[in-house]
Amino acid sequence: MGPMPKIQPELLTAAAFAPFGCVIESVASTAESMNSERFRRFDALARLDLDAGLDGIISIAECLEPSSLPYEIDLLERHPRGSQAFVPLSACRMIVVVAAAGETVSGDDLRAFVTDGQQGVQYHRGVWHMPLIAFDAGQRFLVVDADDSEHNCDEIHLAEPVLLETPPVWP
Amino acid sequence: MGPMPKIQPELLTAAAFAPFGCVIESVASTAESMNSERFRRFDALARLDLDAGLDGIISIAECLEPSSLPYEIDLLERHPRGSQAFVPLSACRMIVVVAAAGETVSGDDLRAFVTDGQQGVQYHRGVWHMPLIAFDAGQRFLVVDADDSEHNCDEIHLAEPVLLETPPVWP
Repeated sequence: MGPMPKIQPELLTAAAFAPFGCVIESVASTAESMNSERFRRFDALARLDLDAGLDGIISIAECLEPSSLPYEIDLLERHPRGSQAFVPLSACRMIVVVAAAGETVSGDDLRAFVTDGQQGVQYHRGVWHMPLIAFDAGQRFLVVDADDSEHNCDEIHLAEPVLLETPPVWP
Repeated sequence: MGPMPKIQPELLTAAAFAPFGCVIESVASTAESMNSERFRRFDALARLDLDAGLDGIISIAECLEPSSLPYEIDLLERHPRGSQAFVPLSACRMIVVVAAAGETVSGDDLRAFVTDGQQGVQYHRGVWHMPLIAFDAGQRFLVVDADDSEHNCDEIHLAEPVLLETPPVWP
């Protein structure tokens, strides 16, 4: 076997991420005023896409055990019955790793994205993704997904792990 | 007319807020481990409750014009077709003012709650509430509600405004 394949995070943009999901971010061009112009609303940045009969739920995920880079990716998961969103509840370093929906996935299919520190993401249903990692204990993320943890998570172990490298720029 | 009636915010707790909605907060007793125990998940803190046929959407509201206290409450709104959640995207001062769902509402029905700086809320469908205010320009909130802005907002002007006072303790 040769050395472990590596993946370098690229900057998260809505265009680059479009095949995998939505970027939840406040981009000035999309704002509408609300509440007598005391606020601007960046509307419908993500739309929940859930199987009929499933409710959307709002949860919080809090990091107990921070990860560090380089990080060995050996496990991916997908949620076939609905979209899943993660939004940081305070500015933080955040990396997401994804691969297009499909029955199989290999290390060659992976794309890694580093956020600007405030962006959140919503994965389209079925999109393979690295389970959430964070780099600081106590970091909290709001999670918006389907209320069906039992039948809504497939996992796959990569035949060959991939090494997630430090991004060129941290936020 | 006598002096304007006043309302003093009380501390936001799940029990006190239960008639009006859910508190979105990380309370240790409700956590489950996830992602190989790297995280704990505070699961289903709020459940979306939307009319059939409406999608849930995720938006961001950003404060352009901060409010200050005391604040004159003269307008309430409600969303008859679905729940609505607001979660601050960084720690902040936050006050919510609510009244039970019903056809009429008066100043005597109001309850005001001050958060601990991190808590979010989800209003039950139909619950009257003061339109969102914030105390710092640029403060951002994640909003999770129904994609039907056109037919999902009733407004009512109070016959007599109520003065929202500074809470005894800010977070």
